[in-house]
Amino acid sequence: MPKISEKALAMPASPIRKLVPFAEKAKKKGKIVYHLNIGQPDIATPDVALNAIKNYNDKVIEYSHSAGFESYRTKLAAYYQKEGIPVLTEDILITTGGSEALIFGFMTTCNPGDEVIIPEPFYANYNGFATYAGLNVVPVTSSIENGFALPSVEEFEKKITPRTKAIVICNPGNPTGYLYSKEELEQLKEIVLKHDLFLFADEVYREFCYDGNRPFSVMNLEGIENNVIMIDSVSKRYSMCGARIGALITKNKEVMAAALKFGQARLSPPTVDQVAAEAAIDTPISYFVNVVNEYVVRRDILVEGLNKIPGVFCPKPKGAFYAVAKFPVDDAEKFCQWLLEDFEYEGQTVMMAPANGFYATPGAGKDEARLAYVLNQDALEAAVKCLEEALKVYPGRK
Amino acid sequence: MPKISEKALAMPASPIRKLVPFAEKAKKKGKIVYHLNIGQPDIATPDVALNAIKNYNDKVIEYSHSAGFESYRTKLAAYYQKEGIPVLTEDILITTGGSEALIFGFMTTCNPGDEVIIPEPFYANYNGFATYAGLNVVPVTSSIENGFALPSVEEFEKKITPRTKAIVICNPGNPTGYLYSKEELEQLKEIVLKHDLFLFADEVYREFCYDGNRPFSVMNLEGIENNVIMIDSVSKRYSMCGARIGALITKNKEVMAAALKFGQARLSPPTVDQVAAEAAIDTPISYFVNVVNEYVVRRDILVEGLNKIPGVFCPKPKGAFYAVAKFPVDDAEKFCQWLLEDFEYEGQTVMMAPANGFYATPGAGKDEARLAYVLNQDALEAAVKCLEEALKVYPGRK
Repeated sequence: MPKISEKALAMPASPIRKLVPFAEKAKKKGKIVYHLNIGQPDIATPDVALNAIKNYNDKVIEYSHSAGFESYRTKLAAYYQKEGIPVLTEDILITTGGSEALIFGFMTTCNPGDEVIIPEPFYANYNGFATYAGLNVVPVTSSIENGFALPSVEEFEKKITPRTKAIVICNPGNPTGYLYSKEELEQLKEIVLKHDLFLFADEVYREFCYDGNRPFSVMNLEGIENNVIMIDSVSKRYSMCGARIGALITKNKEVMAAALKFGQARLSPPTVDQVAAEAAIDTPISYFVNVVNEYVVRRDILVEGLNKIPGVFCPKPKGAFYAVAKFPVDDAEKFCQWLLEDFEYEGQTVMMAPANGFYATPGAGKDEARLAYVLNQDALEAAVKCLEEALKVYPGRK
Repeated sequence: MPKISEKALAMPASPIRKLVPFAEKAKKKGKIVYHLNIGQPDIATPDVALNAIKNYNDKVIEYSHSAGFESYRTKLAAYYQKEGIPVLTEDILITTGGSEALIFGFMTTCNPGDEVIIPEPFYANYNGFATYAGLNVVPVTSSIENGFALPSVEEFEKKITPRTKAIVICNPGNPTGYLYSKEELEQLKEIVLKHDLFLFADEVYREFCYDGNRPFSVMNLEGIENNVIMIDSVSKRYSMCGARIGALITKNKEVMAAALKFGQARLSPPTVDQVAAEAAIDTPISYFVNVVNEYVVRRDILVEGLNKIPGVFCPKPKGAFYAVAKFPVDDAEKFCQWLLEDFEYEGQTVMMAPANGFYATPGAGKDEARLAYVLNQDALEAAVKCLEEALKVYPGRK
């Protein structure tokens, strides 16, 4: 039997799935499990998108252009311009989810063995995409104490080597919910310019900014237009994760031409989903106002609730729909597993994602977990109550 | 400005797109262009699939399982079993098109620098997927003279080195339309066993076999279950290329587990398209009978028409909907470009794919072109007439 590849062996299993078998067992036992472990929102997809699917009327579901339908790219460019982000139709390559945009981006810009610097904790699948392209992820650790603000320029520069090719950020951040300020992004610009790096920014949570905070896109950083690659997706914006429509956005013509060759090899992103994504751009503002209001209420229930539990600390996220909290426990992964296996409060328990999976530094985030506030208010209140009760009896409590 | 990667520079541009600008110019001048260059069928997608899209009624377009919906995998397994192909639900990983299945397959089994042997001419995007995974494609040349039959065992063995990791076939073949017999596949089995290789078989044209020929799946080769990886897709079967739903099929548990890790990193294949693909399995047999009858008529118009033109030779394909023909010209690529730029017959011309893009051996297939018989009978007759007239006046005629 022939051997599988080294890359296949190195490919990380998704850390948020490790506990799935325990959750399934818990449910089989009749426990209610509040799923705060994954970013699958319960928010309805906008009607304009759902109706576009219902009204799909072509007789043949044909390939689209490898860069995506031109009508969609043009309408998407107009969406960015309305948001004050200077993007033209030709700056857009439609991809199969933000995932594919990042894979194309890494493949296009980095050689195997190159290094990408990522502030940790970070979205765990960046590890997978890096392994895909044979890259090494070099973390710069941010701290829960200041809400996961951008580490200093000095911290970044300590990690830069001749193999460093790019810096990757997620803004607003998954898993932290942190929103980088314009000043923080200007700091990144200086590093990028000085060391001639690419800057990848995953901005898929752009619409989810709270308390009057406004997102600042890397596309608005002047003077590094050829360094910047923005990753986007309709998954979270319109709660249509299953549509698998994303985009790679860049002003760098060489990157765009090369990324398109990767796009041509896989032919095209899905057709009907692009039709839905194009229609989704007409989602009324009132939809977002309602959704953002809902997330703010949920965030406040979760974060305020967590901070009231003795020994728990959870910085208040400014964006996205995740929070990372610190728990007074020996090991958050053990705690999360114990919650599923050995605990229940009035027949209920909570599933969280242990934060160690979001750090590249071994041992980092050992007492932290990520919670996605993608459930309704009652469920979140019940989940917080569960955690409060659990910490009273957890054997590894510190 | 930072440099793009070596892989991006090496990534081949799609050979079938090279002539697109010339086709666009021809159309701007008012010429009718018969597109025999790409495999986008004009056949209607089955109603059951289109209706499943129209009736999609979920309120949130959620992620599916990373391996695809279990209901779809189970139904797909039943489809294979009905076709006499022993596939179980757990042998299936649903992918975003056959393209992604091949990328996952290469990534999972081969290390950068490994070699995959492919009988040429072959589907040009295999080059792209190989570059993706850092592999070297080693061609074994098949001949138009015997209709592109499988080269001998000796020819394969001449190409085997310590870096050889897999053999890749497409059956029935794109671009040749050749259908490998059970005996030819048994030959491959011997090579695979002797040298401990993986055997990839792209079987996406399974339903398109003509003249009483039946396809033989690599999944039915006994004793190499752990070597075989079948690639499949709904694109051609149900004329839904734009759905981007494919599958990686294998009995090798280690390969499946590793491929799933690649699948988890990109989260899931598209949701609504899986619903349509699942519904498509209920396509009535009469649909396929009609489609196959139509393709046989088209093939006969094309192939018999071509062979009547002095100096042209086109072996009769047993499957798929492509034919490779040899033309009495200096250079088929020049001829194809000339057809678009400098020729018209009663305001019409033909677009073909020069076959050199389907060969890895430099200079091979220089007087050949691929024709996809995906147009209606009248268009094909007109296209053949165009080619006949063109060869009377083409300056590079031999």
